[in-house]
Amino acid sequence: MDTSDDESTGVGGAAENKKPPAKAAGKGKAAGKGKAAAGLKASAKESSLLKQKSPAEFFAENKNIAGFDNPGKSLYTTMRELVENALDSSESISELPDIEITIEEITKSKFNTMIGLVDRERVDEALYDDFESEKAREKRLAKEARFQETQAKNAALGKKVKDAPAVRGKGRGEAAFFKVTCKDNGRGMPHDDIPNMLGRVLSGTKYGLRQTRGKFGLGAKMALIWSKMSTGLPIEIKSSMKGQNYTSFCRLDIDIHKNVPHVHLHEKRENKTHWHGAEIQVIIEGNWTTHRSKILHYMRQMAVITPYAQFLFRFLSDAADKNLTIKFARRTDVMPPIPLQTKHHPSAVDLLLIKRLIAETTKQNLLQFLQHEFVNISKSHAERLIGEMGPDFGPKMTVKSLTSQQLVRIHQLFRQAKFDDPSGNCLSPAGEYNLRLGIIKELHPDMVATHASSPQVFEGHPFIVEAGISIGGKDVKHGLNIFRFANRIPLLFEQGADVITRTALKRINWSSYKINQQQDKIGVFVSIVSTKIPFKGTGKEYIGDDITEISSAVKDIY
Amino acid sequence: MDTSDDESTGVGGAAENKKPPAKAAGKGKAAGKGKAAAGLKASAKESSLLKQKSPAEFFAENKNIAGFDNPGKSLYTTMRELVENALDSSESISELPDIEITIEEITKSKFNTMIGLVDRERVDEALYDDFESEKAREKRLAKEARFQETQAKNAALGKKVKDAPAVRGKGRGEAAFFKVTCKDNGRGMPHDDIPNMLGRVLSGTKYGLRQTRGKFGLGAKMALIWSKMSTGLPIEIKSSMKGQNYTSFCRLDIDIHKNVPHVHLHEKRENKTHWHGAEIQVIIEGNWTTHRSKILHYMRQMAVITPYAQFLFRFLSDAADKNLTIKFARRTDVMPPIPLQTKHHPSAVDLLLIKRLIAETTKQNLLQFLQHEFVNISKSHAERLIGEMGPDFGPKMTVKSLTSQQLVRIHQLFRQAKFDDPSGNCLSPAGEYNLRLGIIKELHPDMVATHASSPQVFEGHPFIVEAGISIGGKDVKHGLNIFRFANRIPLLFEQGADVITRTALKRINWSSYKINQQQDKIGVFVSIVSTKIPFKGTGKEYIGDDITEISSAVKDIY
Repeated sequence: MDTSDDESTGVGGAAENKKPPAKAAGKGKAAGKGKAAAGLKASAKESSLLKQKSPAEFFAENKNIAGFDNPGKSLYTTMRELVENALDSSESISELPDIEITIEEITKSKFNTMIGLVDRERVDEALYDDFESEKAREKRLAKEARFQETQAKNAALGKKVKDAPAVRGKGRGEAAFFKVTCKDNGRGMPHDDIPNMLGRVLSGTKYGLRQTRGKFGLGAKMALIWSKMSTGLPIEIKSSMKGQNYTSFCRLDIDIHKNVPHVHLHEKRENKTHWHGAEIQVIIEGNWTTHRSKILHYMRQMAVITPYAQFLFRFLSDAADKNLTIKFARRTDVMPPIPLQTKHHPSAVDLLLIKRLIAETTKQNLLQFLQHEFVNISKSHAERLIGEMGPDFGPKMTVKSLTSQQLVRIHQLFRQAKFDDPSGNCLSPAGEYNLRLGIIKELHPDMVATHASSPQVFEGHPFIVEAGISIGGKDVKHGLNIFRFANRIPLLFEQGADVITRTALKRINWSSYKINQQQDKIGVFVSIVSTKIPFKGTGKEYIGDDITEISSAVKDIY
Repeated sequence: MDTSDDESTGVGGAAENKKPPAKAAGKGKAAGKGKAAAGLKASAKESSLLKQKSPAEFFAENKNIAGFDNPGKSLYTTMRELVENALDSSESISELPDIEITIEEITKSKFNTMIGLVDRERVDEALYDDFESEKAREKRLAKEARFQETQAKNAALGKKVKDAPAVRGKGRGEAAFFKVTCKDNGRGMPHDDIPNMLGRVLSGTKYGLRQTRGKFGLGAKMALIWSKMSTGLPIEIKSSMKGQNYTSFCRLDIDIHKNVPHVHLHEKRENKTHWHGAEIQVIIEGNWTTHRSKILHYMRQMAVITPYAQFLFRFLSDAADKNLTIKFARRTDVMPPIPLQTKHHPSAVDLLLIKRLIAETTKQNLLQFLQHEFVNISKSHAERLIGEMGPDFGPKMTVKSLTSQQLVRIHQLFRQAKFDDPSGNCLSPAGEYNLRLGIIKELHPDMVATHASSPQVFEGHPFIVEAGISIGGKDVKHGLNIFRFANRIPLLFEQGADVITRTALKRINWSSYKINQQQDKIGVFVSIVSTKIPFKGTGKEYIGDDITEISSAVKDIY
């Protein structure tokens, strides 16, 4: 693509080119000037107003980054974040997880009662979005009549009969509210830490290098932010740690601007039952209709990959026929080992990380630092590496006195040197036994086969892939049913671009296994665990297909 | 999916089920206990160590969120963030943009000289990743010989000849460094604001409601964070505002832990040439080989959508044959109007936003607040809305005294009430004239047609879609060539899932336009502008296909 001759290139020869674009240009210019002046004013004012945002504000405004794209997705994400925290907590004390999730629908009038707002009847009907003026009503009825006429004609002529055109609304309507409660039998939280653990974005205890379900330390806090945005109601936490003779109760919200917890109530209550664990309750806007199926799929897939846990899922509403109680029973007492915190692999560190490790180390000299703060560097290996760094370096030199140039030298050597692959010992795959059991208990297939890879490595991070294939079963569609897991959580969205889906669909020759890809009921289960799951980042590269207005506008323009 | 009978269900009847999983279970249990104990210790220590991260640390550790997935993508993203800031800056003062981008490759030895590090020859060869032991060498040669023998046999038998197996490396190798410089003729930055504008994450001037190229206020700061991670070198800024008799010069990096700028040098220098604008220079690790084509596509597409700008793109290296100079010439002086800051639409606000608007408003009473802080609420409309809110509300009530219940009432009414759609006046589409011109100047097609939609709306945000179709041209592949733009920036990644691509590929019947979708050289151009581009958020739903180790591990497991 050499466009260096672009200067001298004339415009193309098509008829379109010759229309003088005078009108557009003129309009553009005039508009440009008028608006430019206004714009300038605004911008001049602005440039002296450099604004600083708190991380809580940032995530409130970009909540889609954390999976809170819309009310339905927010309900789903709230539920799964609470469930994943609960599992982590129970497992961290080697307790077989026992988790209860309740989603309770709250009508607007019940919601208003909760917050002490008197319900008002509509007075000025014409103010409302669903108001239909007399004229609009006549128009609609006439249109419907015309449509039915055409239908009758078409039917008479044997033509295909179309569906009635959908009434186009703005899709806003009434908000639906839900109380989401998740209770576990886990570690609980230290009484004094509760406000900061839930009311401060980017604070957390899971920041070490370890296979974890969570990734960003955002989960429950995002649920709290979403409740502030949609209902304004605080979050409620009950918690008790093993052996505590009290239960902590805390009601709090978050000061978004300062990113600090705002505590309404924080007290110790009697703990008669010796319960330990945490119960978190949040009231948010949601959409059960659109995300019911995702939520149930999530629960079922979680039950597949976590057969040693017991889940009780309930949906409660005023309409008894919508209510649900699903118990996913425990099928084994064999729990995978707890993932262990591990040290960094020398080939996976950057300059910033080396600096941080030096700032945090308790080791005095370079030799000890290399030997103890990384995996796969033995003492003799460390000595050879120091020798290779050059005459400015020595094993006894104080590690905290290294200059930035010397850090670059170490970084460069780490990049080029050979190190053994990190071991997978710190990882906690589901295990073939658990995976098989989970598939059998939830799908009841005719046949199931599983396999686990040995630990492998990318960018210094170990990973293990486990897979299962099932044929037949209950509630399984014909064709491929793909179940994806990363660090033992189900992945349900953006399936199309995922490495697992692509591999299953395109790179596997199913017929060589005598499997009919279209007709058999095939379950494909792939689980990846790692100290770093390479989730694909969102840049600004992607416009979703799910905003119907834009989708149809793009279509309509042709 | 009713699994409430799960308790009583026996396991399936397949042969696989009957294998006693004793070994796996036993191993799991034992490992579980041993590790659990170790894990407990680590966790107990941890729970008292609630850590707080700064936003700079968060983005350093999750840099893929901002498009810094790997060195190649980081080079691309650094370049595009600088170009987009430059365009915004020139346009903000109604200056026809004149932008120079230089990417200069820096060899490791040049880089080391720059930072004052003495180059060292390798001494202990066996330490390095590319070292091949005598034994490994023999093994490889034997393998190659066997392969050639098989090849010869196959060829003799008329069988298909396979490619030689690729040598599997770890894909780390030497880092490549690049100096990226971007110079514009824009507004420049106020001298005293420079450190905070570049050395503090989540600070910015573009946070109002307006069509902007940037979205997160992260761009240049992420480039700085990436330079800290990969080279440790500071960023350099030259800037001058119109009429200033000096140029600001600033060299700074960022204290990641505190999220504050760390200024090395900040001074005023003589400005003899009366230049105004900004020049930013950053030295980072990158990968030109893998992302060269994306970078050039980006520049070309930016030239299509911005024909009133002049771009000079240069790639410089020690290898003269790799060097590039591409000039994308200005083709028109007609600039689209500057996007204007606008007020929020009442149907697009949440509770938090209403609170913030109340905190920030200068208006005294509710009537003035409704009338002046939102679009599409006239005085009489505001009066009717206040009447509808109920007897507790009145036009004269002090807006800052509203209780949280009253805010919920306002929010509920905003959700249900009908408001006119926001106008598209604040938007700045490229314009059909510019889009056509851009297509012609960069592609030289045989035919081009363009169309613009009238403003439409989603969730209270106006948007405009413009589209173009071209047939034939220079450097255009056969079939569909899709060019996507959002707020006048090209989108190059994650094409497959994008609404534009999906629409073009699946929902348009090309043959009805007498276009052959396979054989013709079709350019499809779609540009969307809005005060809110609904970029699809990535949660934890997606594992990329581009990490070959995982991709092949998933494949190999079958």
